[in-house]
Amino acid sequence: MSFSAADPVASVPAHHDAERITHWVLTLVCADGPGIVHAISGAVVAAGGNITESQQFSSADTGRFFMRLQVETTTGREEFESALRPVTERYDMTWQLDVVGRPLRTLVLASTAAHCLNDLLFRQRAGQLPVEIPLVLSNHGTLRDLAGFYGVPFESIPVTDAASKALFEERVVQAVEEHTIELVVLARYMQILSPELCERLSGRAINIHHSFLPGFKGANPYKQAHARGVKLIGATAHFVTSDLDEGPIIEQNVVRVDHSRSASELVAIGQDEESRTLTQAVKWFAEDRVLLDGARTIIFR
Amino acid sequence: MSFSAADPVASVPAHHDAERITHWVLTLVCADGPGIVHAISGAVVAAGGNITESQQFSSADTGRFFMRLQVETTTGREEFESALRPVTERYDMTWQLDVVGRPLRTLVLASTAAHCLNDLLFRQRAGQLPVEIPLVLSNHGTLRDLAGFYGVPFESIPVTDAASKALFEERVVQAVEEHTIELVVLARYMQILSPELCERLSGRAINIHHSFLPGFKGANPYKQAHARGVKLIGATAHFVTSDLDEGPIIEQNVVRVDHSRSASELVAIGQDEESRTLTQAVKWFAEDRVLLDGARTIIFR
Amino acid sequence: MSFSAADPVASVPAHHDAERITHWVLTLVCADGPGIVHAISGAVVAAGGNITESQQFSSADTGRFFMRLQVETTTGREEFESALRPVTERYDMTWQLDVVGRPLRTLVLASTAAHCLNDLLFRQRAGQLPVEIPLVLSNHGTLRDLAGFYGVPFESIPVTDAASKALFEERVVQAVEEHTIELVVLARYMQILSPELCERLSGRAINIHHSFLPGFKGANPYKQAHARGVKLIGATAHFVTSDLDEGPIIEQNVVRVDHSRSASELVAIGQDEESRTLTQAVKWFAEDRVLLDGARTIIFR
Amino acid sequence: MSFSAADPVASVPAHHDAERITHWVLTLVCADGPGIVHAISGAVVAAGGNITESQQFSSADTGRFFMRLQVETTTGREEFESALRPVTERYDMTWQLDVVGRPLRTLVLASTAAHCLNDLLFRQRAGQLPVEIPLVLSNHGTLRDLAGFYGVPFESIPVTDAASKALFEERVVQAVEEHTIELVVLARYMQILSPELCERLSGRAINIHHSFLPGFKGANPYKQAHARGVKLIGATAHFVTSDLDEGPIIEQNVVRVDHSRSASELVAIGQDEESRTLTQAVKWFAEDRVLLDGARTIIFR
Repeated sequence: MSFSAADPVASVPAHHDAERITHWVLTLVCADGPGIVHAISGAVVAAGGNITESQQFSSADTGRFFMRLQVETTTGREEFESALRPVTERYDMTWQLDVVGRPLRTLVLASTAAHCLNDLLFRQRAGQLPVEIPLVLSNHGTLRDLAGFYGVPFESIPVTDAASKALFEERVVQAVEEHTIELVVLARYMQILSPELCERLSGRAINIHHSFLPGFKGANPYKQAHARGVKLIGATAHFVTSDLDEGPIIEQNVVRVDHSRSASELVAIGQDEESRTLTQAVKWFAEDRVLLDGARTIIFR
Repeated sequence: MSFSAADPVASVPAHHDAERITHWVLTLVCADGPGIVHAISGAVVAAGGNITESQQFSSADTGRFFMRLQVETTTGREEFESALRPVTERYDMTWQLDVVGRPLRTLVLASTAAHCLNDLLFRQRAGQLPVEIPLVLSNHGTLRDLAGFYGVPFESIPVTDAASKALFEERVVQAVEEHTIELVVLARYMQILSPELCERLSGRAINIHHSFLPGFKGANPYKQAHARGVKLIGATAHFVTSDLDEGPIIEQNVVRVDHSRSASELVAIGQDEESRTLTQAVKWFAEDRVLLDGARTIIFR
Repeated sequence: MSFSAADPVASVPAHHDAERITHWVLTLVCADGPGIVHAISGAVVAAGGNITESQQFSSADTGRFFMRLQVETTTGREEFESALRPVTERYDMTWQLDVVGRPLRTLVLASTAAHCLNDLLFRQRAGQLPVEIPLVLSNHGTLRDLAGFYGVPFESIPVTDAASKALFEERVVQAVEEHTIELVVLARYMQILSPELCERLSGRAINIHHSFLPGFKGANPYKQAHARGVKLIGATAHFVTSDLDEGPIIEQNVVRVDHSRSASELVAIGQDEESRTLTQAVKWFAEDRVLLDGARTIIFR
Repeated sequence: MSFSAADPVASVPAHHDAERITHWVLTLVCADGPGIVHAISGAVVAAGGNITESQQFSSADTGRFFMRLQVETTTGREEFESALRPVTERYDMTWQLDVVGRPLRTLVLASTAAHCLNDLLFRQRAGQLPVEIPLVLSNHGTLRDLAGFYGVPFESIPVTDAASKALFEERVVQAVEEHTIELVVLARYMQILSPELCERLSGRAINIHHSFLPGFKGANPYKQAHARGVKLIGATAHFVTSDLDEGPIIEQNVVRVDHSRSASELVAIGQDEESRTLTQAVKWFAEDRVLLDGARTIIFR
């Protein structure tokens, strides 16, 4: 089954339309200083490339320079990398070269809530989310059929105590290696990851949680938010760190509510925000648009 | 399969928690004038009912009075209606008495685009949308598997000429009767309904279409919107009338875009707005929150 | 000087257009139970009144019933109150009868920031905010000219220590009595009110403060928000209580920001949200649309 | 009088903090092709400059390349221009070099509505809008005091017939020359400009008008929008062209409304959107963030 878009748009002609052309996305981070853009664009020219999209940011906080380029070349990866290397070495850059649109190998962790998983799978299928999902891993069996409908393998490992939790996390580590996973998405996975696993997945695991103004600590935050009469509820997608729910923020959304909403309705409304916020964060990450600047993210939308 | 909510909220205790209690929703429309609220609340008291929610609106444009009440009673429907009838007759009211949360019998028409149908089916399954869908009818076979996954019967009748279009519409009329359909949802059904069918479904068929500022006539509006560089794109859910895309508006949403979005990306963004706008409109209709005041809708949210 | 609206709208004809008609707003709160709506609407009918707007809410949390009515009568206040009294006494209601559109006597406290005061004064002048402001009281002289431009008396009393703070607060108390003040607005007044003054102004003082997801404690929250890379910043208008910034929430707004915004830009963006959020909260309060339900507000928009 | 920001933010240290440093904004447009970024960054390096901000866009529709750079140099304008010229000539660029934050000389046209003018003047004064306004020109005297409060010269020339309209427009042309005006803002100026004046001000005059979904033609659009029961109303800021209200769009906003709003309330709500949309468009233009690509604008936010 393949879902098609509703309104087919006549394809916009590309500038250079040859079969041999590759569309690259190049991200790089280094200490800020003069001449970087000139040097990197020189390397692109040397490789016969054309810059079709470019975004940069100089962080006043950390003195770091961030750049994301999309480049068309007819050269192969090795040749392109050779052209880039003198520059990336001179400026001591952290960099990455990827093909635009390549599906990111993504492992999804889930529990019993379907809304985030459904949104990820539907959009992946509809061609709106450049990921491939070789496995959904859950501590419950609830979502087996949903994964099955989309043809995605599903495993469940109950987590009831320290031993079973360790088993689950071992399977995560194993699956990451087995499938050369590039991103782990916690799609309302309701167990806290161990500090060791957080550390191991640092910078490549995304979590979603509800967000309120003001924040509420402790159990049943929707009930607390209801009791306090908040007028906005929302969701925050962030990188997983061992400091629970305090990782660098990738995306946030809120929606307006009023006093007539029951706590259950707040949950339903909050779930919508969670789905779309998580999917958006995953999409940006898969498109190499998310770079880390200390505790902040740079999002090249 | 049943999708559960992520964060179970301890159930909020109802005021009166007896098994025999029924929760009613009562909507009524009549010429405005003094004493209506008193009369109707007197009838509710006479039936032993307690008003738990009440909204009213006096239309300065048409001189009509609109009201939506939620009422708890231990009396049955007949007894309640008997208590109401003297008032509804005295004020020549158009009125309707329904049970809160009763699933509305809904026929969905679709073509090839999956996004609206998927959202309707997922939310119905998740218990967030009080409808039951005995049939999805399409002019293509594309969405058969999606309907099947949710256990919803699916039929396709190709529409290629006037004769096949008439066949399709006959099947709509037949299905409406066969399943005592209360609402027909055009979930990106891409054929124009005949004036006769529009007339027949008047006030109980909802359509969704894209919306731009300014509006664009003719083919491929997303391409036009792209060419004009619009900064907002959105969707409008409205009642179907024979005046194409000009029926009373139920709900509208927009989202911000910028010059870097291709026409194809505008389509994807627009589809999200279409899904959530249509589902919201269907939800309000199913909850008896949508009343007609000439060319306007009164939405008792 | 009087600011006129840009597009004069031909006045919509009212239902009953006699000179002797008064438009009342009636708010009431009592323990929930059956028959309240019938009883109160009966009293309105007895007073020859016509209900033109009505909103109610039953709080499942506190078991309280809240109602706001707009009523047209040709009777005077005494006669109307006499008709209401049997019902308000029977149900032990807290209630208030006001004339629609009557300007609320409002004292504004400010410091040096102009944005909130400017918005309040401009909208008051433009006829969009039903308040009259007999005095702006500030701990600085900065905003004297702004108040002067709008013809509003302005006093400044420096607050530098406990003694001068006491003097300032004495002047607040005195001004409240002198001008029979009904609402005190803290329009970015940057001093913490004493618990005694908070208590004395309970339920009739509104404050505004910035809001972030997540919240930030301590000095310079915009700088903290910038460091953390938040994607949304906003403002919350709430009742003043002695529990700093924790009073019942009246209104909240947020706006989207990205990594490229400096901390100073966040301040400017946040100020816009503060202005519009505070003005909105004041407007609803002045229109008798804000009722208290324990720690929550009921907003009859 | 000077309005200060509420929360002083400790100034963020700049990268290079010498007195002789100038912050430039460079915008350029040319036919797209390889090597442009490298060539222009080479010229910046040759001038001893450091690129601190850079945005670019290749238009698939027109084949044009757009770029906006912020550059720090210790060189003067002449030296910098000399370094740029070989590149701008080679690529046949349209380009502009400006100093970041330089106030744009802006002429404001107004009629009787105060909301847009008030917002422009308040933000200019508060340091949030880099414009200087040597004159407000109006066809009415209504706003004289408002302009006066902000110390801005004000002239009114009644427009009642073709002859007086010609006089008004002559004064516009004269004022543009006299004050070397770079931008003309129609802040709810309710007269249609002649095609000749539109042509003369092409690309440097910005207008604001209300926006609805769907659009409404003819008189009193707010009344029409009310009659149709729209759920969203908004505003569009666009360049003035002789094709009325059809110039390239710079910014759009909408806000949600419901059936209970009177036509007059829609006007008040719409005015808020007009103010903030117009001010935003003027700010982006003054910061050299608005470039024209045929009928579209490229906004480098």
